[in-house]
Amino acid sequence: MADGMDRNAPIGVFDSGIGGLTVAREIMRQMPDENIVYFGDTARVPYGNKSKATILRFSRQIVSFLRTKQVKAIVIACNTASAHALEAIEKEQDIPVLGVIKAGAYTAARATANGRIGVIATRGTIDSGVYEQVLRDLNPGFQIFGKACPLFVPLVEEGLTHDFITEEIARRYVKDLQYKGIDTLILGCTHYPLLRTLLRKVMGEEVALVNPAYETAVELKALLTQKGLCHAPRMLSGAEEGLGAPASYRFYVSDLAAQFQEFANSILPYDVAGTEQIDIEEYGGSH
Amino acid sequence: MADGMDRNAPIGVFDSGIGGLTVAREIMRQMPDENIVYFGDTARVPYGNKSKATILRFSRQIVSFLRTKQVKAIVIACNTASAHALEAIEKEQDIPVLGVIKAGAYTAARATANGRIGVIATRGTIDSGVYEQVLRDLNPGFQIFGKACPLFVPLVEEGLTHDFITEEIARRYVKDLQYKGIDTLILGCTHYPLLRTLLRKVMGEEVALVNPAYETAVELKALLTQKGLCHAPRMLSGAEEGLGAPASYRFYVSDLAAQFQEFANSILPYDVAGTEQIDIEEYGGSH
Repeated sequence: MADGMDRNAPIGVFDSGIGGLTVAREIMRQMPDENIVYFGDTARVPYGNKSKATILRFSRQIVSFLRTKQVKAIVIACNTASAHALEAIEKEQDIPVLGVIKAGAYTAARATANGRIGVIATRGTIDSGVYEQVLRDLNPGFQIFGKACPLFVPLVEEGLTHDFITEEIARRYVKDLQYKGIDTLILGCTHYPLLRTLLRKVMGEEVALVNPAYETAVELKALLTQKGLCHAPRMLSGAEEGLGAPASYRFYVSDLAAQFQEFANSILPYDVAGTEQIDIEEYGGSH
Repeated sequence: MADGMDRNAPIGVFDSGIGGLTVAREIMRQMPDENIVYFGDTARVPYGNKSKATILRFSRQIVSFLRTKQVKAIVIACNTASAHALEAIEKEQDIPVLGVIKAGAYTAARATANGRIGVIATRGTIDSGVYEQVLRDLNPGFQIFGKACPLFVPLVEEGLTHDFITEEIARRYVKDLQYKGIDTLILGCTHYPLLRTLLRKVMGEEVALVNPAYETAVELKALLTQKGLCHAPRMLSGAEEGLGAPASYRFYVSDLAAQFQEFANSILPYDVAGTEQIDIEEYGGSH
């Protein structure tokens, strides 16, 4: 921890693209006083099928960029990047760095009754085995069943979240998990909570669906509280300069395709008109 | 045209990822004496939904890389990159640069009887309007109907080329084109020829399916012949050093995920074991 960190500094949140906005939204809800700087790597999205080395390099560049915004903490709001890069980046940085995976795993560990937990995620996250590892550390008796679902992200981004085609694909993806008798399913990709209704229908009421976004915000709040890094309470007319203002949310992307703003506007409760494009490849990712 | 260009130098071929291998395969078939250097931008794939500025920047970096391999000509084996970057790169380079779009448009112009031509492609290619522009230049009387099909690439990459789900999605995508009474359909993305059987079934026998990969190789051969740049004929025991050897094919990628080799091996008639990873962001793309 860097001494003298400014408690009113923003929180940095990043994702391969737009999915991480579901995590940002949860932080906004649970910590409305906090400023947020969001980066979506829309020029290089998706991360799901790419290698660990590439994802780690991309993540380091993004962390370098976020540090130029004087963030007090970083949330890797992408399961694939959390799987491949969290461990290295945590060691390299002197501010708190959180991923979404531990939060999801802890929630699943509390939710399961029979110890049989399913994980649906990108190929990168599943192949990394990271959910299995974290869950087994919590309880070596857990049985973990992973399934890569590469079509979910493009289907969500095509807006087919309630389509019978998506339902048919979901049934194929989760068939094996159902045979295994899981009672808890981790939605291990930030896009998947947008399929919650459909997955609820396919899985049935008896399987708990775990959304790591919610729990990540809970974990972040606890960590900032513990470190004395929560933003000062905003008053309607603040005595201190600026504290009466609403929280500031800034959005940066590496590609300014229209899709980011459309999708962002559909996820967030307000318009994200001011999204700014930066050249992420210029950030060295040195540490 | 650089004077004194080596006719035995390789041809550079690039794509956002693996789809361009369908074009490379066609060059190999039609010009078996030619050496090929292929680059697939697997770290930043797909290009289809990204902006013109980003695609142009990526394409310039790749051209810089290919020039370090002393290529005598460059084929942009990606419709989206051809749509966004061909015009600029043609002007900036002193060697022949070909895209896949003109070739596809010319073939479609010859194939159509009623002048009503459909184009299916990525969102980037469709929104660029480039097929429409090239076809109207050929014949202002043509009626062009474009349709973006963003799910086709992930479906092909999931191996669902003969699945009823892909067929259902294809029926939705082409429904409007069928109402318009097209008699010719351009497969305006290098992945789509892998859906030829399914598209034939959906479109019916009376609609001509145009695969730009084939015609691009025809155009390349004509161009190299005209410029005296065809590789010297390879003899079984060449008098000149090296001419008895088979053509050399080298593959480079920006991310070495297993998927590239699996897919490459399924498209090409031999094993591409020697794929090499490079850091494409190090190539400045200056011109």
